[in-house]
Amino acid sequence: MEVTPRKIVRIGIPRGGGYAMGPGKADLLEAIHATGSISAAGRSLSMSYRRAWLLVDEMNHAFATPLVEAHLGGAGGGGARVTDLGHEALRRYRALQDQAWTVLRTPYQDYLRLLKPE
Amino acid sequence: MEVTPRKIVRIGIPRGGGYAMGPGKADLLEAIHATGSISAAGRSLSMSYRRAWLLVDEMNHAFATPLVEAHLGGAGGGGARVTDLGHEALRRYRALQDQAWTVLRTPYQDYLRLLKPE
Repeated sequence: MEVTPRKIVRIGIPRGGGYAMGPGKADLLEAIHATGSISAAGRSLSMSYRRAWLLVDEMNHAFATPLVEAHLGGAGGGGARVTDLGHEALRRYRALQDQAWTVLRTPYQDYLRLLKPE
Repeated sequence: MEVTPRKIVRIGIPRGGGYAMGPGKADLLEAIHATGSISAAGRSLSMSYRRAWLLVDEMNHAFATPLVEAHLGGAGGGGARVTDLGHEALRRYRALQDQAWTVLRTPYQDYLRLLKPE
């Protein structure tokens, strides 16, 4: 497993007992942008169809306006698009992770010395 | 739900495809210290007995020496103790969260403006 700051800095944006945004939702947004489809995005992350739709629904209800627009059915099984707010929410989420990593990089390396050598 | 920096800054210490330390394991260590028992600690976090033991086992194998010493059975059903390294691992994990929060506090508040008013 490659260890990246994104695997380490798992920021959550709490909302209503759950999270409006977090590592899984951010990855899903990126995958929807890449694939143009919620189900294909879910598959690319080994996420069930049901779970991918649930996460999209949670995001769409938590933010001021939807982050993903889906059109169901039709030839090709419909598709999905990340909205302008979706791109903004994702960009700023990644910025939070990057900002945290600037102060965590050194103490994180120190922390690893507590572990067994890999 | 009370929103605290600990709910927002969910740092993970990746190790071997999983995490050596993370929000759930840190809370469990605290609860073991408070209750003196792995099963009581798990219950206090609404965590199954099996899961609490699994998390302890993962931590004990990932760190240089065990973070929790359990003595099974006996009158009272045994007990558990957080070791010196366990206290150190927990203290430094909370310090990572606090350090990240110092730089995240303001951009996090800004991020909330993207959400629907609660």
